[in-house]
Amino acid sequence: MSQAHTPGRSLGGRFAEATDPILERINRSVDVDQRMWSQDLAGSMAHVQMLGSVGLLSEDDVSAISRGLTAIRSEFEAGTFAFEEADEDIHMAVERRLTELVGQPARRLHTGRSRNDQVMTDLMLWMREEGEAMREVLVGLIEAFLTQAQAGHDTPMPSFTHLQPAQVSSVAQWALSHAAELVGHLRRWDDFLARLDQCPLGSGASVGSYLPLDRQHTAKALGFARPSLNAMASTGGRTEVMDALGVLAMIGSSISRLGEELVIFASPLFGFIRLPDRLTTGSSLLPQKRNPDGAELLRGEGKMAAQDFAGLVSATSGLLSGYAKDLQCDKTLLFRAWDRTTDLLTLAGLHVEALAFDEAKLRAACKPSLASLWLADQLVLSGLPFRRAHHWVGLAARAGSERGLELAEAFAAVIAEHDDAPEAGERLAKELTGLTPDDLLAGLATEGSAGPESTRAQVVAVREMIGGA
Amino acid sequence: MSQAHTPGRSLGGRFAEATDPILERINRSVDVDQRMWSQDLAGSMAHVQMLGSVGLLSEDDVSAISRGLTAIRSEFEAGTFAFEEADEDIHMAVERRLTELVGQPARRLHTGRSRNDQVMTDLMLWMREEGEAMREVLVGLIEAFLTQAQAGHDTPMPSFTHLQPAQVSSVAQWALSHAAELVGHLRRWDDFLARLDQCPLGSGASVGSYLPLDRQHTAKALGFARPSLNAMASTGGRTEVMDALGVLAMIGSSISRLGEELVIFASPLFGFIRLPDRLTTGSSLLPQKRNPDGAELLRGEGKMAAQDFAGLVSATSGLLSGYAKDLQCDKTLLFRAWDRTTDLLTLAGLHVEALAFDEAKLRAACKPSLASLWLADQLVLSGLPFRRAHHWVGLAARAGSERGLELAEAFAAVIAEHDDAPEAGERLAKELTGLTPDDLLAGLATEGSAGPESTRAQVVAVREMIGGA
Amino acid sequence: MSQAHTPGRSLGGRFAEATDPILERINRSVDVDQRMWSQDLAGSMAHVQMLGSVGLLSEDDVSAISRGLTAIRSEFEAGTFAFEEADEDIHMAVERRLTELVGQPARRLHTGRSRNDQVMTDLMLWMREEGEAMREVLVGLIEAFLTQAQAGHDTPMPSFTHLQPAQVSSVAQWALSHAAELVGHLRRWDDFLARLDQCPLGSGASVGSYLPLDRQHTAKALGFARPSLNAMASTGGRTEVMDALGVLAMIGSSISRLGEELVIFASPLFGFIRLPDRLTTGSSLLPQKRNPDGAELLRGEGKMAAQDFAGLVSATSGLLSGYAKDLQCDKTLLFRAWDRTTDLLTLAGLHVEALAFDEAKLRAACKPSLASLWLADQLVLSGLPFRRAHHWVGLAARAGSERGLELAEAFAAVIAEHDDAPEAGERLAKELTGLTPDDLLAGLATEGSAGPESTRAQVVAVREMIGGA
Amino acid sequence: MSQAHTPGRSLGGRFAEATDPILERINRSVDVDQRMWSQDLAGSMAHVQMLGSVGLLSEDDVSAISRGLTAIRSEFEAGTFAFEEADEDIHMAVERRLTELVGQPARRLHTGRSRNDQVMTDLMLWMREEGEAMREVLVGLIEAFLTQAQAGHDTPMPSFTHLQPAQVSSVAQWALSHAAELVGHLRRWDDFLARLDQCPLGSGASVGSYLPLDRQHTAKALGFARPSLNAMASTGGRTEVMDALGVLAMIGSSISRLGEELVIFASPLFGFIRLPDRLTTGSSLLPQKRNPDGAELLRGEGKMAAQDFAGLVSATSGLLSGYAKDLQCDKTLLFRAWDRTTDLLTLAGLHVEALAFDEAKLRAACKPSLASLWLADQLVLSGLPFRRAHHWVGLAARAGSERGLELAEAFAAVIAEHDDAPEAGERLAKELTGLTPDDLLAGLATEGSAGPESTRAQVVAVREMIGGA
Repeated sequence: MSQAHTPGRSLGGRFAEATDPILERINRSVDVDQRMWSQDLAGSMAHVQMLGSVGLLSEDDVSAISRGLTAIRSEFEAGTFAFEEADEDIHMAVERRLTELVGQPARRLHTGRSRNDQVMTDLMLWMREEGEAMREVLVGLIEAFLTQAQAGHDTPMPSFTHLQPAQVSSVAQWALSHAAELVGHLRRWDDFLARLDQCPLGSGASVGSYLPLDRQHTAKALGFARPSLNAMASTGGRTEVMDALGVLAMIGSSISRLGEELVIFASPLFGFIRLPDRLTTGSSLLPQKRNPDGAELLRGEGKMAAQDFAGLVSATSGLLSGYAKDLQCDKTLLFRAWDRTTDLLTLAGLHVEALAFDEAKLRAACKPSLASLWLADQLVLSGLPFRRAHHWVGLAARAGSERGLELAEAFAAVIAEHDDAPEAGERLAKELTGLTPDDLLAGLATEGSAGPESTRAQVVAVREMIGGA
Repeated sequence: MSQAHTPGRSLGGRFAEATDPILERINRSVDVDQRMWSQDLAGSMAHVQMLGSVGLLSEDDVSAISRGLTAIRSEFEAGTFAFEEADEDIHMAVERRLTELVGQPARRLHTGRSRNDQVMTDLMLWMREEGEAMREVLVGLIEAFLTQAQAGHDTPMPSFTHLQPAQVSSVAQWALSHAAELVGHLRRWDDFLARLDQCPLGSGASVGSYLPLDRQHTAKALGFARPSLNAMASTGGRTEVMDALGVLAMIGSSISRLGEELVIFASPLFGFIRLPDRLTTGSSLLPQKRNPDGAELLRGEGKMAAQDFAGLVSATSGLLSGYAKDLQCDKTLLFRAWDRTTDLLTLAGLHVEALAFDEAKLRAACKPSLASLWLADQLVLSGLPFRRAHHWVGLAARAGSERGLELAEAFAAVIAEHDDAPEAGERLAKELTGLTPDDLLAGLATEGSAGPESTRAQVVAVREMIGGA
Repeated sequence: MSQAHTPGRSLGGRFAEATDPILERINRSVDVDQRMWSQDLAGSMAHVQMLGSVGLLSEDDVSAISRGLTAIRSEFEAGTFAFEEADEDIHMAVERRLTELVGQPARRLHTGRSRNDQVMTDLMLWMREEGEAMREVLVGLIEAFLTQAQAGHDTPMPSFTHLQPAQVSSVAQWALSHAAELVGHLRRWDDFLARLDQCPLGSGASVGSYLPLDRQHTAKALGFARPSLNAMASTGGRTEVMDALGVLAMIGSSISRLGEELVIFASPLFGFIRLPDRLTTGSSLLPQKRNPDGAELLRGEGKMAAQDFAGLVSATSGLLSGYAKDLQCDKTLLFRAWDRTTDLLTLAGLHVEALAFDEAKLRAACKPSLASLWLADQLVLSGLPFRRAHHWVGLAARAGSERGLELAEAFAAVIAEHDDAPEAGERLAKELTGLTPDDLLAGLATEGSAGPESTRAQVVAVREMIGGA
Repeated sequence: MSQAHTPGRSLGGRFAEATDPILERINRSVDVDQRMWSQDLAGSMAHVQMLGSVGLLSEDDVSAISRGLTAIRSEFEAGTFAFEEADEDIHMAVERRLTELVGQPARRLHTGRSRNDQVMTDLMLWMREEGEAMREVLVGLIEAFLTQAQAGHDTPMPSFTHLQPAQVSSVAQWALSHAAELVGHLRRWDDFLARLDQCPLGSGASVGSYLPLDRQHTAKALGFARPSLNAMASTGGRTEVMDALGVLAMIGSSISRLGEELVIFASPLFGFIRLPDRLTTGSSLLPQKRNPDGAELLRGEGKMAAQDFAGLVSATSGLLSGYAKDLQCDKTLLFRAWDRTTDLLTLAGLHVEALAFDEAKLRAACKPSLASLWLADQLVLSGLPFRRAHHWVGLAARAGSERGLELAEAFAAVIAEHDDAPEAGERLAKELTGLTPDDLLAGLATEGSAGPESTRAQVVAVREMIGGA
């Protein structure tokens, strides 16, 4: 009679009454953390092998537990693992099932281990493994941009700053601007993954164990470079999760900008791109509508991970060292940001692959005034200081706007009206007249510019950075 | 008469009226960005040398401008540089002053450059340079923790999880838990600094230049590994600043936790530490108060950088590619988070250096019940499965609490009352009686644990990680 | 054959291909918005009655549709309503089912209505109805505090500022401080609910309808004071949801503070309260632990709604007027914050009802130094300026700390050592000696103070504010 | 010699050494809180009068202090008040100066008062007074929209949802959509101001006073409805500040949307509006640029207050009841959000007043397809169920897009090609041909719609709501 269990108390000689059902419900995390089942099993397997290696478990027990864990893995893989109401989290669920499968030896599984070090080990393994999948989705989107770039080295398109047309750019430069920003995130992600190299297992609740655990053994077995430095730091904080959320927030921000761009470019008043029917949705009221809902989701949802990051920082700030339950929100925040990011990257890829540029509209939007900097630079090459060149072209722009003239005419007029006009002015006014968007594009000579030679080189560089052939 | 300036318009042939004074005031950023004066001068110097090297500026012009820039540097260093009302930002202020100093050649300075690439170059240089200073302050705090650790390898102290006493730990383990978390941030910071390796200069407004600029030249001269990949990405985004803010937010979160810990430990009901008078403040009403205001500032202000990060993501999300004025908030957010972090790290260092532990209070807080895990582990070593060991000790804890007994007595009672009690029970109940906090501390055997051997090794490891002797 | 449906396109003569399955999945909101089924049915019922009243629907159609809507309501109430894969949202699900049930008339339901005005009507109805339930949970928590207050008018307890003991307060004052803050939130909530008085229905997509809809009719029928002012504002924004989230965030902040308080008070080093077993949980490793997980969830989760608020502001800022898909995140954010708040208020109530104060520990924590302000105030009553009184007591506090004396002795010593000491000093030093915490508590004379008379009056006042008997 | 001051210690008998200069600097708040000087003086004046009225101060002392406070007020008004290095905050600065001016009586000013209740009183007074100014700026912006509305009742303009043209709307409807949202914020603001009705003064540090203070007296004198309910709640929380920040965040979100709208409408590809030169700025590189920097600042900076709100919630969550230094960030956050909001509302007003719509462009953007809903509604009036009407018009839209036809032609074609086409189809196809944007606008019949009659009524309604003539 001695060890009678308090109902609903898996951890329990200590307690005289069952957990309040409301607290039990709010406290339960198994719906969230069960997705780490594979890592939890891997961690337990490594732990048990280590316990055997240092003599804390007999060979028989190691073998029984290992057999049980393997069976549980098969159940998960087959989708037959059955959670029970009383399973508080994935760790307790696995241990409960192990007990059903192998009996007494299962009660030795948790020797020298706390859920505090167990869950952080699971989580780091999960991030490392799933981090590779995230990497691939990210690379997939970059490649979609490269494909657009390669088709668009010679397709002129206005660049905008402040949403005002600035210069003649190209579809390739636009696509590569996104690719370049994403390559930056890829590098952040790789740095983040590389930092997941310390194994928390063996930290116990926060100060280690009285048993002769071999932390090097489990760290190696699980593919970490080393055991974590300090047992308290590696169980009582969530900086590794913040790290992930920080990069996801930055990725989200880039996705959000892409969304805005697609929404604006797809608006008939711009008309730069057409999205296929399968990426637009209708209106329940307005029969003619083809709405870029997907692009708007990129824009809106892309902003969310930053709040998840801020939420985790807020939740874990102001806590004492050592584990506190407040930390449990980490997985809710991480997984929702992670899944959202995967979805958004995938959805973004669909859009980038599918978008068709309307070259006629792009060319039509390359108004003559986009030659303004070219004109100023030619004046510079003729010897004028840039500030004066800028001023003369500015006067022309103003005259053009006030008198309804295009740049060439307006510049010619301004030149003609001033005694002190630059000598090269007349010649350049003439050159301007025949200048096409293609000429302006070809005139861009610098590395990283929209010039076709540059964008071709950028494609090669990006491909190298993402590890492509 | 032709080039008459519109009042308050430095960029002006285009405009027929002056900027609205309210917009001018809100738009002006010189109060914020002037702290990048040194980087702005360095960037201009490199730019001008490059312009000379490719023949866009004459040797005389290069030499005049260089002389002017050097003179301006001296003015800043001497504190004599005078800003004027019309200086919109640091870039225009420097160019205005250069014109006053060297005349016409100054009007050639901005050849082939936009403020868009200029400001990002300044900012990346600033982060790289000041990033080293931040690194030092961070290392300083880590060292303060190491000093505390070295003094406290053998000073017992309860560890807490959920603010409930857990096991006997040590002052060293506590100090090292902070050091270890900060070392993680140091690694993040170094990774961040290493990613600041692409020079934006030469990107122009967003699509490059028609002039034959040599971007490799400026990149090298300014200490970057290469020119930025894509002109639009490197002028129209602020991911580099987000990167900094992300790490600062994580550092802030660790500082905030330290603050809470100091506040709690300094409360007389804990009484673990005493802060010196110089780090406490009084009350205007209650004469007896010695308040840990500094620690509370660590806790409260440490939470703020996460909002600065979220603010920058929010402000820059949902924008079209290419520069937009919305990006200008980046420096306000960055500098305030940066200065705050420097202050907080410094203030934290002051506290950690000054805090005196009350060993008597720490020992008194190491109640006998903190031997619970030791007891369970001994039962394990005697052959009991851990879950049964856990249960027996739990029963003892409950009995202790219900009958007002300390662990040893309570365990002895529980053992005596059950026929199926573990054989080793009686022996262990006796061993428990004489067990001191020092014994428990010494019994911690694992890497990363609070055991004195482990904490000594941790100090060595941390010292290595921060590059110390 | 003419109206062949594109697969998966409910809205669709316009479309030549089906929606991409990935977009369809991400775009679908029925999992989130189905909880508004009751409001959606109520809104449709009112809409249909109005369409009948202005002659846009025949009596037969009105009656058929009404019958169908009533049947659907029964299905939802019975839990038998079956969603289908293709149901994009609750609105389409209801219309689809209505068509199954009543056939052709169902195709007239959406006359003069857009999902844009429909969803905002549903949501405002939902917030109004569920807002009453939230109000009740909030009042329930306030009442739990009142119960604690009534039991604790005469139970001394230290007040803290900066976590340093400040004065003798009472359990009642502590409970009432929470009640008072929550009463402030209740007022905010009531103000918020009162502002939900404009009915969006009839706004259409954003500029109204060509049909002679009677918006007064539907507004009245649904219990709104009036139709919304401007069709675009009432469909294209989410300020009503922000409004809710703002108050929830503030409630959360108060709950978080309560959580911290419970965690600290329950720590053995304070020992002010004991939580029952049913509100604590065990450790998987440490057998003796009774952790206040519930209180920690209050503290941690209470911080989250502020991020939900910031997320909604971020997601909806920077959008053009008129509906955009970005707004769809509103319900995800609202419902999760709403449910979390309900849970936390309920859980907080459980804790407040259950918490047992340890009067002996509370009294023991009321150290003599808590009489410091009393002493200073007595000196003031004897004629001393407060600043001098403050200074004398401060000297005593310092002497006490340096020489290990309690306040009375220390003050007597300081008085004896100074020629210019206040005359009343000697008398007061004696009075101090016998002063109990109860005396100090009783000495608090001001409205809102911890004095028993004041706290009794506060209970009456709070009860009045929450509308109790 | 007895009361020798510790250097830099205004609160001092307690302390043996001066505050650390770094802590002193970080702790000092006078730069931030000095803007409450007027409220601080008003609060002190009311406090002193009350102290006199209950006999705690002599008539002479009251009169001396009052005289001093009046003199200090004059110094502030004249700009001659001189802060000193040692002034920690506005409260200590005023008391220090008062001591200089009136000597001993000044040392009685702080009788029965703590900075905790003093600062909250100052802050609530400040918000109440400055809240009226904020109200006026907000009303000013609403009035600017009303002016635009009145000029634009009959100016057609496309409405957008998802940035896709939806229906013919009007400039008035657009302006009123902003006005309506802002009127909602005005109501929130008024509710917030009304809640600032409880006077904290007399709460002391957190549990009241031993002196017979008359809190009703000061509450009345300062224009509050009553003293605050609970001394601890009214000094240890910042919900009143959160309340303000919540509304400011919502206002910011609306401003941000206006900014986006102006940026898009001012882009030449839309060309709906022209901003005057004084509200645009130039580019340092591109001579032709006229950038809407002001509008972009509205968009970007409008997002910031939400983070300030979240920051305050984060900073004050997880704290024990009773004042903690963490709360000090409240004023930094409040004032920066407040000033920013004032600036943005003013800047928004400048833009709204100045913006000139290009009617030709607006009309040109009202493409024939915007009649789609009108067409569907006419089919409904001819007896067709709406869903069928929607489908037929959808088919026409698709045909139009595929065959390059405008709506009328496309609809005629679709009608002709189907045997089961609606009878009214042919007639409506003809009616469509001559339909102008003005006809469509005039056809909007519902309250709140863009129809001219509706927008005229909306103007009247808004004017009434803002309390205009």
